[in-house]
Amino acid sequence: MEPFADRLRAATSKYGPLCAGIDPSRKTLTSWGLTDDPTGLKTFVEISLEGALGSVGVIKPQVAFFERFGIPGLLILRELFASARAHGLLVIADAKRSDISSTAEAYGAAWLGADAPFGADALTVTPYLGLDALEPIFSAAAQAKSGIFVVVSSSNEEGRGLQTAAWGGGSVEEHLLKDIGRYNDVQPGETVGAVIGVTREPNPELVAAMAGPLLLPGFGEQGGSAEELRTRFSGLPNAMVVSVSRAWSSAGPNVGELALRSAELQDQLRGALE
Amino acid sequence: MEPFADRLRAATSKYGPLCAGIDPSRKTLTSWGLTDDPTGLKTFVEISLEGALGSVGVIKPQVAFFERFGIPGLLILRELFASARAHGLLVIADAKRSDISSTAEAYGAAWLGADAPFGADALTVTPYLGLDALEPIFSAAAQAKSGIFVVVSSSNEEGRGLQTAAWGGGSVEEHLLKDIGRYNDVQPGETVGAVIGVTREPNPELVAAMAGPLLLPGFGEQGGSAEELRTRFSGLPNAMVVSVSRAWSSAGPNVGELALRSAELQDQLRGALE
Repeated sequence: MEPFADRLRAATSKYGPLCAGIDPSRKTLTSWGLTDDPTGLKTFVEISLEGALGSVGVIKPQVAFFERFGIPGLLILRELFASARAHGLLVIADAKRSDISSTAEAYGAAWLGADAPFGADALTVTPYLGLDALEPIFSAAAQAKSGIFVVVSSSNEEGRGLQTAAWGGGSVEEHLLKDIGRYNDVQPGETVGAVIGVTREPNPELVAAMAGPLLLPGFGEQGGSAEELRTRFSGLPNAMVVSVSRAWSSAGPNVGELALRSAELQDQLRGALE
Repeated sequence: MEPFADRLRAATSKYGPLCAGIDPSRKTLTSWGLTDDPTGLKTFVEISLEGALGSVGVIKPQVAFFERFGIPGLLILRELFASARAHGLLVIADAKRSDISSTAEAYGAAWLGADAPFGADALTVTPYLGLDALEPIFSAAAQAKSGIFVVVSSSNEEGRGLQTAAWGGGSVEEHLLKDIGRYNDVQPGETVGAVIGVTREPNPELVAAMAGPLLLPGFGEQGGSAEELRTRFSGLPNAMVVSVSRAWSSAGPNVGELALRSAELQDQLRGALE
């Protein structure tokens, strides 16, 4: 198997830069006429998967919306991961896990690699405990040819103060990009990437030097535009996907409409990034 | 039911300040002569619970060590929560969850309150996406009379750079303490507390003004001493527990030895904090 970043490049070059966000919130389930319970969740997941196949190369299930239903929800999550991967889709588990030493290692064991109980192709993590504390997850990812997306510049406004705090002559987010770059220098395979909101304006040189893949949320409903995508992210050498959740799932529950929405979004995003 | 902070005060005044960390890592299971699988995990949990009952008022299971076994691990976690709470123990779920808006709400639904699938008395969260982004979790906790511990100053060294970055005339950790205090001012019940390593030296006035409960890791094996506990945390008005994992579980697998170790640690911690 190729490293995750290579598989991501192959997927986006085949289908386009869209990563379909699978966000079965109460609101979304209800808007599809489904019950807010594991039965509704299961139907949502089946329709989403069918709507994604053939028009999308990457999906990003939001783990919290499965966890809220406890074991039945997590059984559906596990089925979704397995089924999506069996169909050749790449799966980014949006779990935003974070811890230190042997605990970080345990999260790696839970989420990364073919033998993992919730085996995904990539996992999102948050860096508040220090990027170096996450090293056991990075190692697990490198070994499993999986990817990690560290939340660096989130698309929501509430994170601005902390993420732009001053650290070592720059901001927290700049410092983290440099630290990730150092990790990717030592460990080949572009294992560690970054989450950067389309609504943000990262330093392009730091992002390029970071070398890992980009997961770009915030397009559409959170305010990020095609013009912002173009000016801020086109031309960067990094592998990248743009995750779209509500603007994608709002085309459901009709499978054909979902596929159509995928195609429209792929065109829009490809136009902005190429 | 009383708010979490009141129940925490009652538990520590009855048993002492020890919070027994339930950390079934591979290393710990092996050191108890158990297999590193769900069967070993189940035995570890049963013995730990028996060793805690009567000598400890609060336990903190580390969720990652259950998640690594997938569904079977999470079934054991759910049983542990239910059984511990049925016996009157307070349960802090150390899950370090973190997300925004409806996703944060979903984590609240997963972990807080009697109806939650993994219902705990309190949950740890990380603040990288912004403290205000966690507001839906805080609200869920207030409504369920549960507690939240925001990781502010972690006991590990790798987090120092980010946590001491400059923000608004102080450090990130100081800013967060102030923001938590503002939340507790508006919402009564001391719902939102902080994780502060015993190895750290927080500003006592900010901690007191923050008003929420304290979860203090890093005592013993991570380098925090009774003297540090005394000089840094005794005399503060906050409800507080000191979480001890390895130095507690290393007394197992004998139940009597675990209870004895609890009593020793309670004495040591009470001596430092009173």
